[in-house]
Amino acid sequence: MQKRAVKIGIIGFGTVGRGVYRILTTNQEKLIQRVGIGLEIAGIAVRDLKKPRQISAPQDLFTADPWQLVNDPGIDIIVEVMGGTELARELVLQALRNGKSVITANKDLIAQHGQELFAEADAARVDLLFEASVGGGIPIIRPLKQCLAANNISQVMGIINGTTNYMLTKMTQEGSDYEEVLREAQAMGYAEADPTADVGGFDAARKLAILASIAFHTRITFDQVYVEGITRISAKDITYAREMGYVIKLLGVAKEHEGRVEVRVHPALVPQYHPLAAVNDAFNAIFVRGDAVGDTMFYGRGAGELPTASAVVADIMDAARNINLGNRGRISCTCYEQKEIIPIQEMEGKYYIRLRVLDKPGVLAAIASVFGQEEVSLRTVIQKETIGDKAELVLVTHYTKEGNVRQALRTIGAMTTVEEIANVIRVEGEEV
Amino acid sequence: MQKRAVKIGIIGFGTVGRGVYRILTTNQEKLIQRVGIGLEIAGIAVRDLKKPRQISAPQDLFTADPWQLVNDPGIDIIVEVMGGTELARELVLQALRNGKSVITANKDLIAQHGQELFAEADAARVDLLFEASVGGGIPIIRPLKQCLAANNISQVMGIINGTTNYMLTKMTQEGSDYEEVLREAQAMGYAEADPTADVGGFDAARKLAILASIAFHTRITFDQVYVEGITRISAKDITYAREMGYVIKLLGVAKEHEGRVEVRVHPALVPQYHPLAAVNDAFNAIFVRGDAVGDTMFYGRGAGELPTASAVVADIMDAARNINLGNRGRISCTCYEQKEIIPIQEMEGKYYIRLRVLDKPGVLAAIASVFGQEEVSLRTVIQKETIGDKAELVLVTHYTKEGNVRQALRTIGAMTTVEEIANVIRVEGEEV
Repeated sequence: MQKRAVKIGIIGFGTVGRGVYRILTTNQEKLIQRVGIGLEIAGIAVRDLKKPRQISAPQDLFTADPWQLVNDPGIDIIVEVMGGTELARELVLQALRNGKSVITANKDLIAQHGQELFAEADAARVDLLFEASVGGGIPIIRPLKQCLAANNISQVMGIINGTTNYMLTKMTQEGSDYEEVLREAQAMGYAEADPTADVGGFDAARKLAILASIAFHTRITFDQVYVEGITRISAKDITYAREMGYVIKLLGVAKEHEGRVEVRVHPALVPQYHPLAAVNDAFNAIFVRGDAVGDTMFYGRGAGELPTASAVVADIMDAARNINLGNRGRISCTCYEQKEIIPIQEMEGKYYIRLRVLDKPGVLAAIASVFGQEEVSLRTVIQKETIGDKAELVLVTHYTKEGNVRQALRTIGAMTTVEEIANVIRVEGEEV
Repeated sequence: MQKRAVKIGIIGFGTVGRGVYRILTTNQEKLIQRVGIGLEIAGIAVRDLKKPRQISAPQDLFTADPWQLVNDPGIDIIVEVMGGTELARELVLQALRNGKSVITANKDLIAQHGQELFAEADAARVDLLFEASVGGGIPIIRPLKQCLAANNISQVMGIINGTTNYMLTKMTQEGSDYEEVLREAQAMGYAEADPTADVGGFDAARKLAILASIAFHTRITFDQVYVEGITRISAKDITYAREMGYVIKLLGVAKEHEGRVEVRVHPALVPQYHPLAAVNDAFNAIFVRGDAVGDTMFYGRGAGELPTASAVVADIMDAARNINLGNRGRISCTCYEQKEIIPIQEMEGKYYIRLRVLDKPGVLAAIASVFGQEEVSLRTVIQKETIGDKAELVLVTHYTKEGNVRQALRTIGAMTTVEEIANVIRVEGEEV
């Protein structure tokens, strides 16, 4: 039986929900032409029916009971944009069991409960789409799953948190320090009152778990991602990095080495010539290296009402097309392998190390000798400013194992001539 | 009836054909796991059976008769990578009529005969996919058709020819002149003996016709694209541009203004802060602006054996999936509108103009007055080097109509004090 229109239930009417409503109602005619079947909003579930809305929508669309939408046999597609992982998980599971396709922008949900949800979607032969969960409006999930499907992907590296990229860009362009920029970002609404999810790297880690799972065809969860935030990055680090030809970015890095996978989020020195180095302000970008395609990059706005809604509506259109053609569950979960995670100590890379030491003869030699004992070879050693009897040393290592760097730093940190290991930042995006 | 494997016929075994063969045979197991059905090369048509191959493939796969593949009822998918537009058109049409899905990397074919071919694919309810025709391995066709489908796209702007981007990058980095770089590019195999298709902008124009057709949902053919190549770009222009904060790139530009469309390929001054400005060497990138998503960019290798084959194989996988699920012709041509093309004289923009004039009082005033009469206002006027009694003037206009600039230059070109209008280059990527 040919349907006249696909009916959509939206759960959550915050920023993204409003954006979805706005696009679906404003562009309705065009979208229908593009997708070949009507798209009709059948209901919107909100927490508080009395709360004033920033957008006018017919009052009879609203309900305070999301279960009503999830259990309504007339609804074909559930759009979950409420956030959170507990109620959202239960609602999505129920919707899938009820044979509805589900679109979500909820990275926490996918990164935490992806396996269970995809299994349910597979069993029900419906679509569970989540393009908006990573990179906002940037097409990245579908390109990874389809356009680059002929590749063995060896590397996914992304600037996937807009707040921290905005902050690091400001610090780079204005020379301001972390605390100052954070206050500014909070005042402008770019950072939340409790900024931990962003500046601590946890938001990026959730997105990286999703990207890595798709790229390497193995389920990677949030708790498997090694995470460091940007709270220790100082204006000094940024200046020293620039002098050596780098910018500092918060990166999500996922690499495969002979069937094992490393997944980590941390600030990194990126060479100025790397395509990711020019990604500034709140923009996001995801760099992907495949054995056939070589290097590719996907760039755009990683958040915001309309960019995120752009991705959600694209998913709605795809799900609607599949319903119209009797072809739901067309592309299901592609995690058909089980790959081991490489512990952070075993990762190999280059390291920027800033030390505060006593400015007297023999100190540098003693430090260099410790690195030598741990088989860490140094590429650059620069003595920066000297204040009183203290000097600042900036070292960059050659390619080496992280465990060895850590061991050397433990010894160096205990030396009486070393006042402080001020910072250690990984270098990414250079060839070995 | 469930098929065991999808059978593929490849027409043409040059660079791309070999790449497709290499990926399909090397990664066969993984690809099958990802797509859910076997992928089997059933035949390869070549012009000359006796020619030595750069890759070993079973001799019995080869045939000198492409019609044998196109008419073989056992073959499900035809991969057309032979190039050209006459025989390729006939073969593709016949394959579609015979109910086979077709994958092509042939931009000339799609830009010239797209309408006819898509109509045939629609009638036969099969897939006609062409991701590799623009931007090599960069995912751009599928992202435009699907991931950004919720948007009204206002602008597509791309570096879509690797040869000229390599040449302009060399000119920028080394200060060398056009002829020198062209010889170098030819010696390295980046440019062909007859480089016209690349340096004349025609290759980019074909790709732009394809991109614009998809972005604006209206059929745009190669001959509707305004084309200028890079042959007149000198080391001087590049230097002057840099001094003003620009780089020179060969751009394909497509914009929609109130239901009318401009499509043009020409060198352009791009501000250094624009994401396209950092796209160097043989890399390509396509910048897309949508009303919901904002600015996005897709970056990667626009040519080469494996990058292009990466896109072809992704299309094969999609077509195979559709055959497996009984769902061919899932997304057909989306040119459901008919939009008028804006003549180049009516386009509006900013212009860089380099003039050689007599170095004497009153000349600049006279030139400025001509621009004034044509309502072209000047943003910058810089007198560059003076040699003997000749001076070089560089002007940049404010936003204005191209017809007015042309009219002013006709008058200026006829002035006895003006020796030469040395170059006129459009400025792109700045906000109005």
